[in-house]
Parts: sequence; C-alpha cells; structure tokens
Amino acid sequence: MYQLGIVKRNIQRADRAAVDRLADFGVATLHEAMGRVGLMRPSMRPIYTGAHLCGTAVTVLLHPGDNWMMHVAAEQLQPGDVVVAACTAENTDGFFGDLLATSFRARGAKGLVIDGGCRDVKDLTAMQFPVWSQAISAKGTIKATLGSVNVRVVCAGAEVNPGDVIVADDDGVVVVPAAMAAQVADAAAAREALEAEKRAKLASGVLGLDMYNMRGPLEKAGLKYID
Amino acid sequence: MYQLGIVKRNIQRADRAAVDRLADFGVATLHEAMGRVGLMRPSMRPIYTGAHLCGTAVTVLLHPGDNWMMHVAAEQLQPGDVVVAACTAENTDGFFGDLLATSFRARGAKGLVIDGGCRDVKDLTAMQFPVWSQAISAKGTIKATLGSVNVRVVCAGAEVNPGDVIVADDDGVVVVPAAMAAQVADAAAAREALEAEKRAKLASGVLGLDMYNMRGPLEKAGLKYID
Amino acid sequence: MYQLGIVKRNIQRADRAAVDRLADFGVATLHEAMGRVGLMRPSMRPIYTGAHLCGTAVTVLLHPGDNWMMHVAAEQLQPGDVVVAACTAENTDGFFGDLLATSFRARGAKGLVIDGGCRDVKDLTAMQFPVWSQAISAKGTIKATLGSVNVRVVCAGAEVNPGDVIVADDDGVVVVPAAMAAQVADAAAAREALEAEKRAKLASGVLGLDMYNMRGPLEKAGLKYID
Amino acid sequence: MYQLGIVKRNIQRADRAAVDRLADFGVATLHEAMGRVGLMRPSMRPIYTGAHLCGTAVTVLLHPGDNWMMHVAAEQLQPGDVVVAACTAENTDGFFGDLLATSFRARGAKGLVIDGGCRDVKDLTAMQFPVWSQAISAKGTIKATLGSVNVRVVCAGAEVNPGDVIVADDDGVVVVPAAMAAQVADAAAAREALEAEKRAKLASGVLGLDMYNMRGPLEKAGLKYID
Amino acid sequence: MYQLGIVKRNIQRADRAAVDRLADFGVATLHEAMGRVGLMRPSMRPIYTGAHLCGTAVTVLLHPGDNWMMHVAAEQLQPGDVVVAACTAENTDGFFGDLLATSFRARGAKGLVIDGGCRDVKDLTAMQFPVWSQAISAKGTIKATLGSVNVRVVCAGAEVNPGDVIVADDDGVVVVPAAMAAQVADAAAAREALEAEKRAKLASGVLGLDMYNMRGPLEKAGLKYID
Amino acid sequence: MYQLGIVKRNIQRADRAAVDRLADFGVATLHEAMGRVGLMRPSMRPIYTGAHLCGTAVTVLLHPGDNWMMHVAAEQLQPGDVVVAACTAENTDGFFGDLLATSFRARGAKGLVIDGGCRDVKDLTAMQFPVWSQAISAKGTIKATLGSVNVRVVCAGAEVNPGDVIVADDDGVVVVPAAMAAQVADAAAAREALEAEKRAKLASGVLGLDMYNMRGPLEKAGLKYID
Repeated sequence: MYQLGIVKRNIQRADRAAVDRLADFGVATLHEAMGRVGLMRPSMRPIYTGAHLCGTAVTVLLHPGDNWMMHVAAEQLQPGDVVVAACTAENTDGFFGDLLATSFRARGAKGLVIDGGCRDVKDLTAMQFPVWSQAISAKGTIKATLGSVNVRVVCAGAEVNPGDVIVADDDGVVVVPAAMAAQVADAAAAREALEAEKRAKLASGVLGLDMYNMRGPLEKAGLKYID
Repeated sequence: MYQLGIVKRNIQRADRAAVDRLADFGVATLHEAMGRVGLMRPSMRPIYTGAHLCGTAVTVLLHPGDNWMMHVAAEQLQPGDVVVAACTAENTDGFFGDLLATSFRARGAKGLVIDGGCRDVKDLTAMQFPVWSQAISAKGTIKATLGSVNVRVVCAGAEVNPGDVIVADDDGVVVVPAAMAAQVADAAAAREALEAEKRAKLASGVLGLDMYNMRGPLEKAGLKYID
Repeated sequence: MYQLGIVKRNIQRADRAAVDRLADFGVATLHEAMGRVGLMRPSMRPIYTGAHLCGTAVTVLLHPGDNWMMHVAAEQLQPGDVVVAACTAENTDGFFGDLLATSFRARGAKGLVIDGGCRDVKDLTAMQFPVWSQAISAKGTIKATLGSVNVRVVCAGAEVNPGDVIVADDDGVVVVPAAMAAQVADAAAAREALEAEKRAKLASGVLGLDMYNMRGPLEKAGLKYID
Repeated sequence: MYQLGIVKRNIQRADRAAVDRLADFGVATLHEAMGRVGLMRPSMRPIYTGAHLCGTAVTVLLHPGDNWMMHVAAEQLQPGDVVVAACTAENTDGFFGDLLATSFRARGAKGLVIDGGCRDVKDLTAMQFPVWSQAISAKGTIKATLGSVNVRVVCAGAEVNPGDVIVADDDGVVVVPAAMAAQVADAAAAREALEAEKRAKLASGVLGLDMYNMRGPLEKAGLKYID
Repeated sequence: MYQLGIVKRNIQRADRAAVDRLADFGVATLHEAMGRVGLMRPSMRPIYTGAHLCGTAVTVLLHPGDNWMMHVAAEQLQPGDVVVAACTAENTDGFFGDLLATSFRARGAKGLVIDGGCRDVKDLTAMQFPVWSQAISAKGTIKATLGSVNVRVVCAGAEVNPGDVIVADDDGVVVVPAAMAAQVADAAAAREALEAEKRAKLASGVLGLDMYNMRGPLEKAGLKYID
Repeated sequence: MYQLGIVKRNIQRADRAAVDRLADFGVATLHEAMGRVGLMRPSMRPIYTGAHLCGTAVTVLLHPGDNWMMHVAAEQLQPGDVVVAACTAENTDGFFGDLLATSFRARGAKGLVIDGGCRDVKDLTAMQFPVWSQAISAKGTIKATLGSVNVRVVCAGAEVNPGDVIVADDDGVVVVPAAMAAQVADAAAAREALEAEKRAKLASGVLGLDMYNMRGPLEKAGLKYID
C-alpha cells in the first residue's frame, strides 16, 4: 500500500482452474469457507441486480477525484481479470463510466470493484458490465496525480493483493487470496454439499434446533421456556 | 426488552380477520390511520422491489453477530406469522439466509423484518421470501449467546409486542398493536375511501388549495403572492 | 433562500428549445459540459430504475415534516415543469405521494426532485411519475408552516433558481442555469460527438494511454514500471 | 407509543432510595448488571465532557421540528426527574435550549435526554444543565402538533416507560426499568466489588488469561501459538 | 456557483457597523431572527469548544482533494474577513492546516468555515484560529485544479455570497446576507430583549404553558390529561 | 488477515531509535512524508483532546461483540507497544474499558487504536490512557470466538503489520511500516525544517502565491481575475 507511482507488470494470478471453480459459489458461502473473513464492507453494492463476477485482481490505488491510474491499469489487464480500485481517502466521485468499461472489456476484463463512485449506470447495465461501488455519482474526475497499479491495496476494508480472486454477487464482495484459491473451492464445495441436505430437511419441517442438536446447549446456557 | 434467555410459547396473536383486512392497505395509509406513529426507521428496506408482507409478530432479540435465537424462534412460528428480529446493538451482519428462510417457510412464516443484515438475497428473491433489513451482507454469524423469543422488542426504532400486526411494503414497515388491529383497519378503510374521491378530483385539475380549502388559512398565515 | 411566505408567480423559464435539446443528454455528460459543477449530492436517488427527467424548475422551500407548500406550488406549475423541493433542515419524512403526483401531473409537471422523503413508491412507479429523493419513507407530514414557492433554494447541495433546467437520470441530478441552457446543450453535443469516436477506438483495443497521449505526462510525473 | 394527544399526570416513579443508589454507578456497569441490555444508541452524546445524570423519566413524544410538548412536559416535572424526549421520525432540529432548561431546572429536573438536536450549548454548559442528544443544531422548532407526555416511548433505540431510571455519563445512556431499580443497584454493587479486586490484580501484572482461567478454553477452541 | 477559474477582486462587504452588532448574538438567535433559515448543516462543528466567529465572507470553491484556491483566496482577504470554502463534491480531506492559518491571519482573517476536512488541530487551537469543518483529517491535498474565489457558493447546504456575514459558535454556522445585516441585528436585539424577561419568569417557576398562553390552543387541539 | 486462531509470539518491531524519532512529529507531517498514504479513516477519534501516541503495533483481529482476543493480546505486549484492534465487521460495541487498560499498561503498552467502540471514557481519561476509536459505547462484549493476534490486519482502512509504528494525535492515526521508520523520520524532519521557514514568511505577510511561485501556473491554467 505504501508504494506510489509504481506499476507492477508481472503479477502471479491465481490458478485459472481454481478461479473457475470458485465461480460456482456465492459470496456468503466462500466467506464462510474461509472462516468468516475476507469480505469487503457491505456498503459495496452492485449497480444492477443479479450481477455476478469472478476473476483475478488487477489492483489500482487512486487519489480522491482522480482516475488517471485507471487508464494505466487498462494496459495491465488480461482476459479474466477484475479491476479492484482503492482510494487514499473516502470519495464518492464517479471515477468510472462506459468509456473505461469499453476499454476494460476490450482487454478482457470481467468487471470492476471500486471503493468510490461509478457513473453511466444505464449504459453499464446495457453492456452488462458488472460494477460494485460505494456510490453512484455523475461527478467527473481529473487526471493529475500518480497512484499505483498492482500493489497491495485496502479496498472497502479488505486487503487485496494483485492476482487474488475476487468474487462478487448480490450479497457483496469477497477476496480469496491466490494461494488459497483451490483450498477455498474445496471447502466451499464441501459446505454446499451439506447445505443441500440441510435445506431438504428444513423444508420438510425438521427444526434447526433438532438438526443441529441445539436443545442441549441452549438448556445448558440457561434458556427458559415460559407460557 | 429486559428479559434475556426467555422463550414465551403462548402469545396472543392479533385477530386473524383483522389481520386479513390490514393486508389490503399500504404502510403509508396504515401509519396515517394510527395518527402518524408506529413506523420503523426508513433505513429498513425490502431486499427486492414489490415485496409485501402482513402477518403477526413472533419477536426475537439477538446479540451482534449471533443468530442462535433465530432457530429457537422457528419452533414458535405458526402459519401467518412474521419474524421480527431486534438486536442489542447496531450490527449489519448477515443473520439470515436461505436455509433459515426454508425453515421459517416450512413453519408457515410469511417473511422477516430484521434490524440487522440479510444474505443469500438472490435465493430469497427466487423463493419470493420477503425480508426487510438494515443491510445486505454476506457476513456470517455464530451461535453462542442467549437472547429471547417473544418478548417485547424495539426493532428499528419501533416497539413490537409478540402478536402485533406487521405490515411492510416498498414504503417501509409499520407495527399495528394487536389490540388496535380492527380499529386501524376501519380507519384505513375510511381514509382510502376518501382518497379515491380526492384522486379523481386532483386528476381532473382541481387544486389541493381549493379541495382542502387552504387559501384562507394560507392568507391568514401571511402568504404573499408576488410577480 | 431568505424569503419565507413568498410565492413568485412569474418566473423566467429556460428557453423551451434548449430544454428539449438538454433532454437528449445524460446527467454525467451535462455536468462535464458545465465544467464539473451543478450536481446534487449522490444521496439523491430515483425511486425506480431507468427514470429520466428534463424540465424547468418550480422551486419549493419546505420545513421539516410539513408539506403545505407543495399544494401552493401545484398552482404555479406549467406543462414541462419539474418541482424542486428543498427543506430548511435535513428530514426524511414522506412529503410526497400519489395524490400530489396526480395533482402535479394534471398540471403538466414531469416529475419531482426532493431533498427529503417520498412515499407511495409502488403507485408512483405504476404511474411512471419519476421522483429523485433522499429517502423513501411512509412517514406523513403536516400542513402548518409557511415556506416559499419560486425563490432560489439549495437542494441537496445545489443552488436552484426558478426556471433553471433540471435533468435527472440513474446517475443523479444536475441543475443547468436557465441562461446557460443553450450553451450547455452545445457543449454536451460536442462532447458526445467526441465520445462516440473514442468509444469505437477503445472497443477496438486502443488504450486510453495512447488515445489521450498520457504516456509522456505519466513518465514526466515519475511513474515507474517494474517487473 | 401509540397514544397521541395524551398527558399522563400520575406516574409511578422508581423508588427514590434505589435511584440514589444507581447514581453511584457508571452506565457501562449498570448495563452489564442488567445483562447487556437497556442502552440507547451510541450516537447519543453529552453536550459537554464529564456530564453525569441519574433521575426518573418524564417522557415526551415529539414530532419532527416541533417542541410544543416540551412545555407541556415542564408542568409534569418533579424534583429528581429527567426529561426523555423521543421523536416520531429522525430529526436533528434544536428542540431544546437555555430557556427550556431554565424552566425545567426551576421545576427540579436534573437534565435531558433527547433523540433529536439541542442548541444554546454554551449557555447550557455554563448552567451545567446536562443534555444527551443526537446532534447539536441551532435550528429552531415550531409549536403546532400534539404529541404526548408520560406515555411509553422509544428513545434512541431504547424503550422508556415514565418513572424508569435514566443514568447517563460519558459512555452513553442506560434505562433501568423502575421495577428493577433496587435489583440492578445490587447487581451493580456486586459487580463493582469484584472489579476493584480485578483491577488491583491486573495492575500488578497478572494477566486476564490467568485471572479469568481462559487458557484452557482458548486451547480447546483451537488457538495456536506460533513463532 | 457556475463560474470556474474566476477570482472576483472587488466584493461588496456587509456594513462594518452591522457586522460588529451581529457579533453580539449567538447563531441560534440570529437564525430565528431571520425566520429559521440560513443555517449550515449541523455536521459543521468547531474544532475546539468555545470558538466564536463573526466576519464577512470571502468564498472559495474547491475540488475534492485540492486546496490550490485557498492560496488564491489569501490574497483577497481583508481584516475582518472569514474564509468560506465549498467543495464540488463531499470530501473530508484536510484542506487546511496551520500554515494556511498563519497566512490567513497575517491578512487579517478571523477564521474559516469549510465543507471539508481540517488538520493541525492542536496548532490551530494553540493559535486560537477558529475553524468549523465537516471533519478532522490529516489527509493532505494537491494543487492541480482551478476552482474560484468570491463567487456565490453552497457551503454545507447554505448559500453564501461574497461579503455576507458569517457567524459561528458552538451551535453551528449561520449566513446573514449582506443586505440584511442591520435588519437582522435589529431583530436579534429585539428577540434577546424579550428572552431576558422570559428567562427570569421561567426561572421563578412560571410555566411556558402560562407565559405563552398555550393552554387554550392545546385544549383546542385536543390534548387530554389523564391520571 | 486470513489466519484465524493464530497468535504470533515473535514479531519484528520497528527499530526503537526510529520509533523515538517518529514521536516528535504530528500525524499530518508523517503522512505527507510517506507520500500521502498510510492514514486510517477520519472517523477514528481520540477519546480525549490532546492525546498523543507513538509505539509499535501488536495487532488483534476481533469478531463483532467479542473481545476475547484482547486478553490474549495482553500477554504479547512489550513496553512501548500499541494495541491495534481490527474487527471482521463494522461494530461499535465497547470492546475496551478501564480493566483492560490497567492490564495493558501493566505490560508497558502506551495506548490503543480500535476499529470499534470504547467505554469507561472517564476512567481512561483520568488514567491518561490514550485510545482512538470509531465510537464510544457502554455496550459490553462476550468471550466466545477465536480471532488472532499479531497477524496483518486492516484497521479503519489502513493495513497494519505487527511491529509497524503507529502514531496518533488529534488529527488521526497513521501507520508507518517498520522497515520505513527511519526513512520516514528523515523525510518528516526535512519537511518540518522547511515548514518553520515557510511559517515565518507567511506570518510576515508573504503570500503562498509568491512563496510557492503559483502565479505562473495559475495563469497558465486559465485563472481570470475580474472586478
């Protein structure tokens, strides 16, 4: 986070096969599979309902009101990447719109996660270019100050290293460290297998109290039933 | 609100016929019919557009980051109930997802109102299980601390007693005390009858200034027209 | 802003032809065409996706929890107008609903921008009456205190003079001063012409770095590429 | 909460001796003694550092921007009372200033807790009249709408019944139900007795890990020490 | 507000005698004397307790993260001025610190009101240079983009014209239009004269209910006393 | 950030001499010396005015409403350390009070920075134990879930590695990476030397416009002076 004016060209992206497996899971499942960590703040919301994203992070560090580095980032994109844009201070300006989306898509990028504002929402929705942002704002930005590309950043409260896997859906955004991608996919698959079974039981009327054997622990904790 | 570790099994639900009548009215109308009280804070939003809910409250008091009591509440649900979950501190964690929704629905519950976060929004939308929450967050919770079920709670600024009628739509959430259900339905019906007539007049170009006889009071208050 | 209890009847609306031309542009484009000014705060959001609005401002100054002046404003509306409602303090009450919308529409108004709350969202959506507001809230208001109509107001951080052009879409709300309407339309048209060309280039894979000749300035600023 | 236009004259105040005992404890201690409930939201802050308050609640239900009921409440005050003002919607207007403080003090009131704004902070500080509020705002209010006095209210997320004990300090505001006053004072005293001993041990360098016997449970939970 | 890149050198400052009279009144009194308008949002807070300010506005329009125009403003300052800094978007960066304060003071400025962040709070407090800001933040800014000096701005929700009188204290910030300065001072003096008398009555135990003759109107509005 | 249930015992603390040198500078200066990075969000505020802190980080990762790991952290403290507590979700509960402060001080800790709430503010102030927190809240916490000690954390938007230097004052909190401590101290000293000279010039009436040679760049950027 402390390197300004740097563009790292060669980054170690997460294993493609593992990334593809992670795309099958929702954000809530993945975050549980990692032990309830790795989430960005819930103020990060998709610009349209039903958006889904899974790819490898190319990171950008911006200054408030300045999107110069987004153009620098474009050149570093490879197919399957997701741009993750952090900012040195809280700022809701519209750093990103349909022109940059056109450029990012031409480079193979799958979407954007930005701890700032986004604009041209109607066009981006028509393009089905998914964006998670802190705000929607028409406010334009300038191109005057150096930030960095592909350094470690903090985006919406989560640490993101270049090459990490970013998964985003209606529930939010989760960061899976590149080195843990396969392991998290395994844990998520195991978790989902169990969930299908649980769902069927609950649908049939079995109570979580019984399915999870909670009655004993609740009694021990002192829970009292009264009439 | 001050009883922890308590589950009340027998609660007095609002009269079913009155509940059914209340289902015909919007939240704005009901809140006016009660004298402009009973609303939860406007930060409570439905997880999908067009959601509507009317049922009797089963209340839950949670601690931040802990959804243990949700499972205890499931057992107390009867067809037509709505779970109202309050929390002892502000917290946006995702206390509720599709597994609990499956369980609640199997018990006959119509939806959830939670002063906290909700997750699995895509699945809940597919299920058409309506939820009003303070936030959408993938953040999971633990099961470690006793709260209560069916005690009086404060949820998003509104007092809710077990058995009260909860009505929610795109405008927010209103609480109708069980004992007032029929009376509020009457007042709402009277109000709506008047509104249809007013709407027709206004649509024909009659001004509210004339329809409500406001010109005199405005002049008396000192309103001046200038060119 | 400092005149209370005043209704100005004759206001100078922006030239109709210029207003019609401004309707062709998005909020982001117009705000850039004015030099990145004139935007309301991004907390102003449309009550339904895809809403669009362009018209001349009839302004209203309200007090918290009091919508009396909305009825006074209705009489001042002409076809093509947009009501812009400011408030003397932050307040999320539902000052506006379907009855007022019916009245405003009967007078020819195209929509509402309000630095406060809005209700009857379902009905307003069905009517396709577009509203941008700070909040959605069922909370009703009273009719007790004089504000003003057609005085200069500050709405969501932006100055609005009666007759100014208000354009709103999914990206937010922009105010174009009446005297600048034609000039801003010209600047927006010029900007859009350039954008089409840029979009095509970027879609073909040309980088913004090259299209905007940024490589030299970035190097001069000290940007370093590392491996 | 659902009674508007009501003033209850005879309320059951908490036992004076118990109130006096509660005055010896801080808000954090009392809230723990009740089982970690009864707190108002942390956005309630004292207008000056070091303020402390303990008294019996006279409740007021206000509408946004309207402080009429504060004058009605003044008449119901008895020595040792604290005014607790709730509002039917979120509002930061300055409902209270030095004139009302003068009147309340003349009636024997000890201070104010208000889910709204406060003004004349300099004068109130000079008077040493303690107030906890959501905001400081010079914005004045009107006197036009009926609320209630001495009905149950929800203030900053906490239920308050007339006669309950209100304790407030730099850490926030806690509500002790009148019927529980003596019992909570006992529990708080027991808690404080233990704290003095713990404080001495910790000051001498004993670790909480040992004093609370946490090492076993931590190991059992899976905590790993690495170098 | 719509002129960027402009510095107006000759502005019409409010009459000095009237400004001096306004310095005798608090913000709450002045805002009431103007009819409850002219206040900035309550999020504007002094950086130290007890700060007070009264002077004529030199306005600055900034962009997020850029304080270049503050230096341009310094040259336009005359003894008795107050700098009022607005920003084209919400931003909490520390636009202002002890160096600029030293420069402003050398030019005769009395203080600063900024819809942004401030830093070097310890030094500014030691200098007793009063600042009202939205935030305290150490975050530095750049000098890259033109704003304006001495154009009309919107600062924290209030319109400010160059030369207007700015009064600020612990209760917030109020803007008195230059042309109304004497008249507002008169109204404030009249109001204060009445307040002294009222304060004495209230202190002696007279109720506002009686002093303001509220009992009749309350009864007419339907207030009911119960036991 | 992704290791739960881990306590790292041996961490590499920043060089003591460099830490001592950093203690001489304010947060604003240090953050500029690092290139305008490394700051925590401005919502982190000291619990009392004039607090100052400089030490080496022992990090803690907490879960909402659970302070168990604070006790684990206590054992890892060495004289000169600062506890930096992050949380897996936003939470304002009072994780820290005077008992933990007593324990931390007994171990030689200089203070606490916590992305959560703090309580016992009066006692902590009396102890002069400095704390920077997101909130002040009496709300107590439980001891049920494993987090970690001395792993890399994100605290209030800033990355903190165990052993990094934490400096905090009235302007906020800055993180100086351990490896950069000496270099940042050098840069800060150079910066301060320049500032003293600048301050003297500005105090004598020299304008920043001239001292920084801004007139040319401003003219080139198009700034226009009008009368």
